[in-house]
Amino acid sequence: MSDRTERPVVIVSNRGPVSYRVEDGQLVGTRGAGGLVSGLAPLLDSGRASWIAAALSDADRAAVADRVSAPDGLAVRLLDLDPKDQALAYDLISNQTLWFIHHGLFDLTRSPSYTADWLEAWEAYRRVNQVFAQAVCESAPVDAAVLIQDYHLTLMAPTLASERPDLSTVHFHHTPFAGPDMLRVLPAAARDEMLTSLNAYDACGFHTQDWAENFEQDLRRWPHATSEVVVPAKAKVFASSLSTDAGDLRSTAGSERCVEHLRSLEEQIADSQLIVRIDRMELSKNIVRGFQAFDLLLQQRSDLHGQVVFLACCYPSRENVPEYARYKEEVLAEVERVNARWGTAIWQPILLETNDNYLRSVAALRRYDVLLVNPIRDGLNLVAKEGPLVNDRFGTLVLSTEAGAWAELQSAALGINPFDVEQTAEMMGLALDLDPSDRKTRATYLAGLVAERTPLDWLEDQLAAAG
Amino acid sequence: MSDRTERPVVIVSNRGPVSYRVEDGQLVGTRGAGGLVSGLAPLLDSGRASWIAAALSDADRAAVADRVSAPDGLAVRLLDLDPKDQALAYDLISNQTLWFIHHGLFDLTRSPSYTADWLEAWEAYRRVNQVFAQAVCESAPVDAAVLIQDYHLTLMAPTLASERPDLSTVHFHHTPFAGPDMLRVLPAAARDEMLTSLNAYDACGFHTQDWAENFEQDLRRWPHATSEVVVPAKAKVFASSLSTDAGDLRSTAGSERCVEHLRSLEEQIADSQLIVRIDRMELSKNIVRGFQAFDLLLQQRSDLHGQVVFLACCYPSRENVPEYARYKEEVLAEVERVNARWGTAIWQPILLETNDNYLRSVAALRRYDVLLVNPIRDGLNLVAKEGPLVNDRFGTLVLSTEAGAWAELQSAALGINPFDVEQTAEMMGLALDLDPSDRKTRATYLAGLVAERTPLDWLEDQLAAAG
Repeated sequence: MSDRTERPVVIVSNRGPVSYRVEDGQLVGTRGAGGLVSGLAPLLDSGRASWIAAALSDADRAAVADRVSAPDGLAVRLLDLDPKDQALAYDLISNQTLWFIHHGLFDLTRSPSYTADWLEAWEAYRRVNQVFAQAVCESAPVDAAVLIQDYHLTLMAPTLASERPDLSTVHFHHTPFAGPDMLRVLPAAARDEMLTSLNAYDACGFHTQDWAENFEQDLRRWPHATSEVVVPAKAKVFASSLSTDAGDLRSTAGSERCVEHLRSLEEQIADSQLIVRIDRMELSKNIVRGFQAFDLLLQQRSDLHGQVVFLACCYPSRENVPEYARYKEEVLAEVERVNARWGTAIWQPILLETNDNYLRSVAALRRYDVLLVNPIRDGLNLVAKEGPLVNDRFGTLVLSTEAGAWAELQSAALGINPFDVEQTAEMMGLALDLDPSDRKTRATYLAGLVAERTPLDWLEDQLAAAG
Repeated sequence: MSDRTERPVVIVSNRGPVSYRVEDGQLVGTRGAGGLVSGLAPLLDSGRASWIAAALSDADRAAVADRVSAPDGLAVRLLDLDPKDQALAYDLISNQTLWFIHHGLFDLTRSPSYTADWLEAWEAYRRVNQVFAQAVCESAPVDAAVLIQDYHLTLMAPTLASERPDLSTVHFHHTPFAGPDMLRVLPAAARDEMLTSLNAYDACGFHTQDWAENFEQDLRRWPHATSEVVVPAKAKVFASSLSTDAGDLRSTAGSERCVEHLRSLEEQIADSQLIVRIDRMELSKNIVRGFQAFDLLLQQRSDLHGQVVFLACCYPSRENVPEYARYKEEVLAEVERVNARWGTAIWQPILLETNDNYLRSVAALRRYDVLLVNPIRDGLNLVAKEGPLVNDRFGTLVLSTEAGAWAELQSAALGINPFDVEQTAEMMGLALDLDPSDRKTRATYLAGLVAERTPLDWLEDQLAAAG
């Protein structure tokens, strides 16, 4: 086996680091951003790492057909999947079943409800995983470490193990991982297939020890396991949290266009205190209860009327999932209700931004006094780490104890149970009232905690797990 | 310490073995039935055991005020709780929070949502537990084993441990027990208080190893616990399933009035095959998906049209809980839909009985060809054990793998994932088609499995855990 520091690396994920669009009749590829891509940039640029992902758009598919090279000569291979399989695997299995199970979002009295359609979709999910596995078998360098990302790609292990025993395979879950009671909501055959495959990777990683322990419990209490099996027979299980790239983010925050957004925000809110949330418009993010808590705070504290603004940047997500569309309506209705109840001619308590704008979001992170991150459950939550890195005002983080980031940040954040509207209101009020020296101490410590890890640390943990 | 076989016993539960009603202006007490009461009958009659429970009705309260003795000279003490506390503790905490959490029934996107009202209700729950604890402290014989039943009474331990260290205390949970992710849906302070108290009983019992392991995981992964604590420091944790009293049940099944119900049922359905379910009208029982599966079966199998009847005895439960009322409407609508779709002038596919009638239920258990027990999650489920004991036709049990009874009966029942409507339809069809000798073998084996345990075995396990 090669020295670990030299070993070739293959990253596998549904969404890749490159996407294409048509510009003046030409296919143009651009590099994406984000912690994963930033962390891998040096590896990709050095040619040590290659990346396999799905073609997600028509332009991506055209780029595959035309064998267009990735920008900057990156070793990125996009797979042209069967569109029907891709839709079933992505929408019905990944996002409407596995996502809901791992986040505990099903209203079990009514859903899921499996019929033959679901089983067909599971077969599509299996085929998509198989296409990814074959691509790795064909193109991975000898002895490579293969780092497979997330719940879209749980079933690749058996093929990799049998056809390419030279590879070391690591599966990393970016979501929470359901414990035994919730995992049993999957049809038994699908659950068995998924656990069998996950257990056949050389290692399985999670953002926190809690999700890792859930997975170990799933293996240990799996009907196929004997009661003596305490440690999984095969897969190494590890916890390693992803971090944001501080340099990248700070450079964005200092950019002229971000500063423009900041000025425009300051004109809008003047010297009000500012509560900020930045999330996809998503059930697990618990947006409605956040507004209910703000409503309760305004009810309890007339001294805050006209003095505080809640800026909620809630960006479109999975709009073809009916549950998401319904949730968006509930969010909009709650904003309307709170603004109608408390708003005046000169004060709009909640500003809701529903158009995705990264630079405006970073500007909001610079300006907040309180950052509210209150998910029902969350694999990690990068916003909780990004805010403290760029905030200009020693703002305070109010953080759900159910976000993976809580494990790292609990000593410097104010913790809330996401279902506890009373407590959320109380903590937001407390955060707004903190005296400047407390605020500064807490925010400085928090930024230090966040800076302790880089995306490269996370990558190194996966490579170490690959052995 | 006394010899275990002589040790005095105190049973504590919300609902006691005796209730009162007014008849001709007089308070009349009657003994209840059920596995718990049957199992304890010899102990109660011998005077070794006493029982503390809540007064649940005005007549019960009047009996407390008038110091009316319990029937048969039984040592039963009913507690006259503050009605407002009792309502808050029973409705809001026990049935609308703890029940939902242990069964995984919350639609977490929307509920629970804790505000100050909930905290007040928790205080009421705490006071109700305290009244029970004080009653035990005052009246338990020296060195008694105190057997505390169910999720209504989780907080008694600290008072008992400090005021009556001579007692041995056992808490038995009749529901499932939520694992860490779901238990964290409770406000942190309430969860900490509950786990602290449960851990301060001498032992905690559950119907199955799965629920016991969930509880152990809760203790182990509780933030207060250090990572080294693998085995709980204090409470012994044990699994022991309750059984039905076969003698009692068979005598009811053979009674003249039950036989009359059976004849009337046979007139109604003639020689149709019969699918039966008997449940409270309750979210966890998964009644709607049962009808959806029956609908699917009729869609797939025209040979069954006119040949099979689904008798669903779904009795009123917690009708003042809004979620239950809503669910009842959904059940009624689904029955109407299926009957409208398939019914003919001479065949009504689903017969729904919503008035509780124990003798008619037992008659239905004698007559079924298929017994459907498909809960989303269930601590045990006694119907799954009662059916095989009295069924006349070697009927087949189709059983949810999420019912506690599955752990004992899986080798003789047909298992289903309760969310899998396709599989439920398939298993009901398979059960209807089983050839007579298979049917007989399976049913005989099943009845034997059920008969392996008696309510007394369960009681003895608790006494053994008391030490």
